[in-house]
Amino acid sequence: MEALRLWRARVAAELDSVIAFWERNSHDPQHGGFFSCLSREGTVYDDTKYVWMQSRQVWVYSRLYRTVPRFRRPELLEAARAGAEFLLRCAPLRPESLRVAFALTRDGRPLRVQRNAFSEAFVAVGLDELGRAADEPRYRAAGRSWALALWSWVRGVPLELGRPEFSGSPPQEALALPLMALTVAEQLLEGGGGDPQIEAMAEWGGSAVLRHLQRDDVVVLENVSPEGEELPGSLGRLMNPGHALEAGWLLLGHCRRRGDAAVGARALSALVRGPLRWGWDPQHGGLFAFLDADGHCPTQLEWSMKLWWPQLEAMVALLAAYEHSSDPKFLEDFDRVATYAFDKFRDPVHGEWFGYLNREGGVALSLKGGPYKGCFHVPRALMMCEEMLGRILEREGTPK
Amino acid sequence: MEALRLWRARVAAELDSVIAFWERNSHDPQHGGFFSCLSREGTVYDDTKYVWMQSRQVWVYSRLYRTVPRFRRPELLEAARAGAEFLLRCAPLRPESLRVAFALTRDGRPLRVQRNAFSEAFVAVGLDELGRAADEPRYRAAGRSWALALWSWVRGVPLELGRPEFSGSPPQEALALPLMALTVAEQLLEGGGGDPQIEAMAEWGGSAVLRHLQRDDVVVLENVSPEGEELPGSLGRLMNPGHALEAGWLLLGHCRRRGDAAVGARALSALVRGPLRWGWDPQHGGLFAFLDADGHCPTQLEWSMKLWWPQLEAMVALLAAYEHSSDPKFLEDFDRVATYAFDKFRDPVHGEWFGYLNREGGVALSLKGGPYKGCFHVPRALMMCEEMLGRILEREGTPK
Repeated sequence: MEALRLWRARVAAELDSVIAFWERNSHDPQHGGFFSCLSREGTVYDDTKYVWMQSRQVWVYSRLYRTVPRFRRPELLEAARAGAEFLLRCAPLRPESLRVAFALTRDGRPLRVQRNAFSEAFVAVGLDELGRAADEPRYRAAGRSWALALWSWVRGVPLELGRPEFSGSPPQEALALPLMALTVAEQLLEGGGGDPQIEAMAEWGGSAVLRHLQRDDVVVLENVSPEGEELPGSLGRLMNPGHALEAGWLLLGHCRRRGDAAVGARALSALVRGPLRWGWDPQHGGLFAFLDADGHCPTQLEWSMKLWWPQLEAMVALLAAYEHSSDPKFLEDFDRVATYAFDKFRDPVHGEWFGYLNREGGVALSLKGGPYKGCFHVPRALMMCEEMLGRILEREGTPK
Repeated sequence: MEALRLWRARVAAELDSVIAFWERNSHDPQHGGFFSCLSREGTVYDDTKYVWMQSRQVWVYSRLYRTVPRFRRPELLEAARAGAEFLLRCAPLRPESLRVAFALTRDGRPLRVQRNAFSEAFVAVGLDELGRAADEPRYRAAGRSWALALWSWVRGVPLELGRPEFSGSPPQEALALPLMALTVAEQLLEGGGGDPQIEAMAEWGGSAVLRHLQRDDVVVLENVSPEGEELPGSLGRLMNPGHALEAGWLLLGHCRRRGDAAVGARALSALVRGPLRWGWDPQHGGLFAFLDADGHCPTQLEWSMKLWWPQLEAMVALLAAYEHSSDPKFLEDFDRVATYAFDKFRDPVHGEWFGYLNREGGVALSLKGGPYKGCFHVPRALMMCEEMLGRILEREGTPK
């Protein structure tokens, strides 16, 4: 337990340092919202505002304000609110539309739109959490509208500016879909309240994740048919250890809420133990970005790079698995993964973590943030780990 | 000159070995066309057929058949013809449409479409060259239709399934556009004939390339405004050494055909000497994939990887620059780049070159072909180098 106490202290200190980095460097006092393209030192190298990153930072600040007493600072809530107001004002492609941009100029004019509904999903979780933190129902109601937009897209209603379908392309479902559905639904359902549409989305997400467990639960495939059959070629064999581990802790939370022990056991085995086995680089340590289920070389150029977020999803998944099962092997693995992650990704000089290492563990991109890395995975994982470590220490009767 | 004779022999032998790899492994006798997703050993790991790769292999086989006597083998022309017939039958999205798919199933059903006209451009060059090799005007006429489709897109006519524009996104022109325009136009204009529309496309391409030379010709920017102004942010500072070098040899050829000495001198300096200076990794050798003109970290995860094609474009550009200028420094640089490329990328065991190395020069992806690597850059560069080395040796009066 001494090791867990040390980890809790280390994780808490790191969370403080990481949030200080984003508060110091990412706020736009002129237009509201956040810069995410920050250099190693924290300077802005591009002032594009990405809707994913805006929404996620709103979520992180709001969640910290609401649930971690030392972060209950008005300036954090005000920054979250300024981010949300920027989104509400600028992200929709037209005044009444729920379809939002992917990227905006600093002053909020649309630059690009994605042909999926992930931007909409992140807006939903950010606004819901701000509504809880600020105790303002209008943000939660807006978040729910975007959650329902995601849900109708997941059920096949095409989007404005969606992706055309072609006769040769088999119907397919990416693991990212149930991940988003579970993320959004479990956020909105937290603390109860009974919303049948959102509960249906959660249920769909929980069962859709299971379709990606293939070959007797030995592999987790990113893309399967809507009936849960394997798809041909590289697309069908693609594996993403970070997504599998994220699915693991999301599904464990979903099962705990619903009291579903059988699915929980599958999650522990296929979505936590599994990716740590097949996704971990035995030579240099760290989780790979992509793999091929038959051992072919993936076609993604970054397949062997070590990205920050899969390591952080693993830390969360391993503590969630230990809380669920009390199997000490999960704590051993947490220590191994967290030690690797803190050693390789942390920047003790300027704060925040590097995002992109080469296979050997050297820094490949010196930036701290970019179009896909912002104030999200590092603080989310650290706050979840701090909370779980606290519960574990309390449960196991050792003095805090 | 002894060194050049050795290089000519080495290049010719490598060309033989590379073509043997593709003849042995990539043909689909059942449907026509070519597999490009080949493992290190040459086995097919995915049977998707990419229209870029089909068209480029048709071009390579036809060009070799037409211009290199030892490749004047009927089976090579027949494979090219089978590839072209597969394209004509399956690539168009609808029977009468010039809009083509990006990816097809093995039997030719559409899988994906790109939101630009590069697939159309590659179809144009492949069919034009097959028409020349087979002496069949119908292929050249079809190639010209696709060339004109590219030309109308370049002039702003939107495509079926094109990219929507947004108010925050400044008008921009990627260097890939003039590269494609020059590639297509110079292919169609080879040997004369006087086609005013195609000549206009070549002229546009030649002058549009120059808009990407910025800051007193010291940098080459991938994306500029249509008026040749720098764009803000990472997008505006992006540099791609391989594209710059490809633009270099394309522009030198264009200037030679038109007798334009002043532009030729700018090409030598800004598009050949320049990228070899700012694009070369002083630590580990090799040309980077991407750089930022102000020295920020690029956001492309593969920025520091060594890709096969920029090194090959450099080999072509350096010999073209020497032919143009007789400056011996270009031959020294050719020797350095070609030595690096042959040492690091060649696979003496199974043939063809690896495509994707890490920054240090180790193989990062073991595959020989994929969605973007097929039978193209290696044989195109080798055949061009063999031809130029022959001309240089002849010109400088040494016995063959």
